[in-house]
Amino acid sequence: MTSPLVLVNLKTYKEGTGSRAHMIAQAAQLVAQESGVTIGIAPGYIDLHPLCHHFSVPVYAQHVDGVEPGANTGHITVDAIRTAGAAGSLVNHAERRLTLADIEASVRALQAHKLISVVCTNNEATSGAAAALGPSYVAIEPPELIGSGVSVSKANPDIIKRSVAAVRAIRPEVKVLTGAGIQSGECVKIAVDLGTDGVLLASSVVKSKEPGAVLRDLVSRL
Amino acid sequence: MTSPLVLVNLKTYKEGTGSRAHMIAQAAQLVAQESGVTIGIAPGYIDLHPLCHHFSVPVYAQHVDGVEPGANTGHITVDAIRTAGAAGSLVNHAERRLTLADIEASVRALQAHKLISVVCTNNEATSGAAAALGPSYVAIEPPELIGSGVSVSKANPDIIKRSVAAVRAIRPEVKVLTGAGIQSGECVKIAVDLGTDGVLLASSVVKSKEPGAVLRDLVSRL
Amino acid sequence: MTSPLVLVNLKTYKEGTGSRAHMIAQAAQLVAQESGVTIGIAPGYIDLHPLCHHFSVPVYAQHVDGVEPGANTGHITVDAIRTAGAAGSLVNHAERRLTLADIEASVRALQAHKLISVVCTNNEATSGAAAALGPSYVAIEPPELIGSGVSVSKANPDIIKRSVAAVRAIRPEVKVLTGAGIQSGECVKIAVDLGTDGVLLASSVVKSKEPGAVLRDLVSRL
Amino acid sequence: MTSPLVLVNLKTYKEGTGSRAHMIAQAAQLVAQESGVTIGIAPGYIDLHPLCHHFSVPVYAQHVDGVEPGANTGHITVDAIRTAGAAGSLVNHAERRLTLADIEASVRALQAHKLISVVCTNNEATSGAAAALGPSYVAIEPPELIGSGVSVSKANPDIIKRSVAAVRAIRPEVKVLTGAGIQSGECVKIAVDLGTDGVLLASSVVKSKEPGAVLRDLVSRL
Repeated sequence: MTSPLVLVNLKTYKEGTGSRAHMIAQAAQLVAQESGVTIGIAPGYIDLHPLCHHFSVPVYAQHVDGVEPGANTGHITVDAIRTAGAAGSLVNHAERRLTLADIEASVRALQAHKLISVVCTNNEATSGAAAALGPSYVAIEPPELIGSGVSVSKANPDIIKRSVAAVRAIRPEVKVLTGAGIQSGECVKIAVDLGTDGVLLASSVVKSKEPGAVLRDLVSRL
Repeated sequence: MTSPLVLVNLKTYKEGTGSRAHMIAQAAQLVAQESGVTIGIAPGYIDLHPLCHHFSVPVYAQHVDGVEPGANTGHITVDAIRTAGAAGSLVNHAERRLTLADIEASVRALQAHKLISVVCTNNEATSGAAAALGPSYVAIEPPELIGSGVSVSKANPDIIKRSVAAVRAIRPEVKVLTGAGIQSGECVKIAVDLGTDGVLLASSVVKSKEPGAVLRDLVSRL
Repeated sequence: MTSPLVLVNLKTYKEGTGSRAHMIAQAAQLVAQESGVTIGIAPGYIDLHPLCHHFSVPVYAQHVDGVEPGANTGHITVDAIRTAGAAGSLVNHAERRLTLADIEASVRALQAHKLISVVCTNNEATSGAAAALGPSYVAIEPPELIGSGVSVSKANPDIIKRSVAAVRAIRPEVKVLTGAGIQSGECVKIAVDLGTDGVLLASSVVKSKEPGAVLRDLVSRL
Repeated sequence: MTSPLVLVNLKTYKEGTGSRAHMIAQAAQLVAQESGVTIGIAPGYIDLHPLCHHFSVPVYAQHVDGVEPGANTGHITVDAIRTAGAAGSLVNHAERRLTLADIEASVRALQAHKLISVVCTNNEATSGAAAALGPSYVAIEPPELIGSGVSVSKANPDIIKRSVAAVRAIRPEVKVLTGAGIQSGECVKIAVDLGTDGVLLASSVVKSKEPGAVLRDLVSRL
């Protein structure tokens, strides 16, 4: 069994941009080294290359377009994030939903460049559908719990169990993350005990005054 | 084995609106009675209720939103098309792509009202993903062949075979249609021989001066 | 000065569909005849043709696509709503936002068919921009007040005044509606006194047990 | 009268990414210094900060979201591009169309940070509408000519004249760019003679083996 992944989405929070992004990446690197747990960081586009350059933690884009380089103004290609040093990308986050055709194109483009794809989904059925595309990870996040401070692990363990089962039934090799309201080592422990391969989270780390302490707590029960 | 479905999408063609929609539905009804093949019609929203009222052929919406009745200006709910008498709806047509979350919501809403869902897809991978949502049909239409006059059955039989396999591997009970460039009984025969449960087509019937003759040819080899 | 317009958006409310849509249209027709005020109705697509057929009040679509008839599955053309008998259409409602290019195409298509265009906007600046497209009406609805039960006339008269001024400065012939939270004759009176040409409203009529009584109150101070 | 602006959109062309982006920016800087003409560069998000850091030419984002920093995964805020050192941003490019509400939010956010806003439009009417939002520039690009190799200056001088007039009638202080098919100093000269304040172009510079030579030609008649 592989080590779980704790993936921290910096969104466009002020507290996750520029020097704060660096500080969080540094804390992630330190806690990852101490604990042996893989901690990834998904910063804004502008911070992507600097973070890849300065830190050893895997850095993810928050979104990527499945288009080829070309006449696509305002898009971000897999080619661009790969050159920047990204390990992979979120795809279809609740705050950046894509059409099914575009999700598939993004996953396929990430695979073609041997990058990690993390497709976000909102329920059991869409988790199964996303798994059928063969991404590296499916990240199930019940939309009503995102940013709520209520942990999906505690509020809705059933949706996690059913989503894990739905993904496994279709593509056993696809890993599962869960997210929404994750804020402590206990939440992470429950998520992993329910069969997931880690968590996707944001505000509890990014908005903390001590991201390192939160990260240390998050991995403490693994 | 059930009889194949020939589903005629009237799009917003002038030749598929108003009295022409009625004429095509009448022809479809006649050919269906003669041949025993199920022929469905997907007219514009305005013609939906009159066609359901006047003809015995199954009538489909071209799109439906998975939202509940409520504050959704400019949307079309499953409730609305069911009341109009629709048998089901296309979902995620190439000319009306939806997010994965919205496709799932539409399929679920159609199921809840016991209506037929036909999810359109663009390739093998998205066909598998759509199948995972458990719709009645997945309709695979390679976008580059839509309206091209080049039949998918002849130009790309492999994509049909692989899509049928992808759907069957995930949900054997989900039926498969194919489309794009279908124009003759031979195209339909090949599609069915490749394992599909019928075809989705538009211009070759709608833009014909004799839709009845085209329909008669389309079902002639079944 | 022309008589104000009271435009009732039935959205996809259950209470504004089918027989309820007919009942509201009937009430609107009666109150319009009694009062001399123009009352329009914007039902769902399915009810559009029957209402146009059965009632003398002007009937509006809730949305229209600016595309020509053709290969546009799931769209609704101006041609379709005109044939159904519509007087015009809402465009860019808060619940169905469009790109600027698509708003312009819809307005132009409505003009080409001599139908009334009502472009919805969210603030003073977008009201001016919409006016530049030369629609029949701009309908300013502060999104935070839609369906709130708090009337824009009372909560934010300034945004109405400024929007009227913004529209007049750019195209004096474009009329202005306002909406969001409108529920009484007093709200309508204030709106008109602030320089608008009427109101756009929904829930207070649609969800009422006595739409006729609400409509009678709405026009009572004009 | 201010000096015209030649704004080079690098899109996501391979030939406009990474070291090629630097090479083009360097060429732009040199030609700008020689000629006194302002030459701006709009690279991909990843190259935005490095180009701002290394070159004196104004660097633009290709798109910006009008949202505040916060829970907006996969978005790019004005705050982010300003911190990166951008001079401004394109908004609503033909390859990245936005709703009217989002265009207005982006323009307002750029203004609030004192950055330059360049709103792209597709015809005379949308140019007037965009002008009403008070951006720094409106850039009119007939979609059918983008990347066509046929210059808008020669193919459709009328649309330029009418768009300039439409913008001036609404907000005389808003500057006008034009684009689509611009490839020589003659095209630029015509555009400026027709009343514009410069040009927006892409492939003729980006895909050239000698971007410096093309840029030198482009500014040669100013």
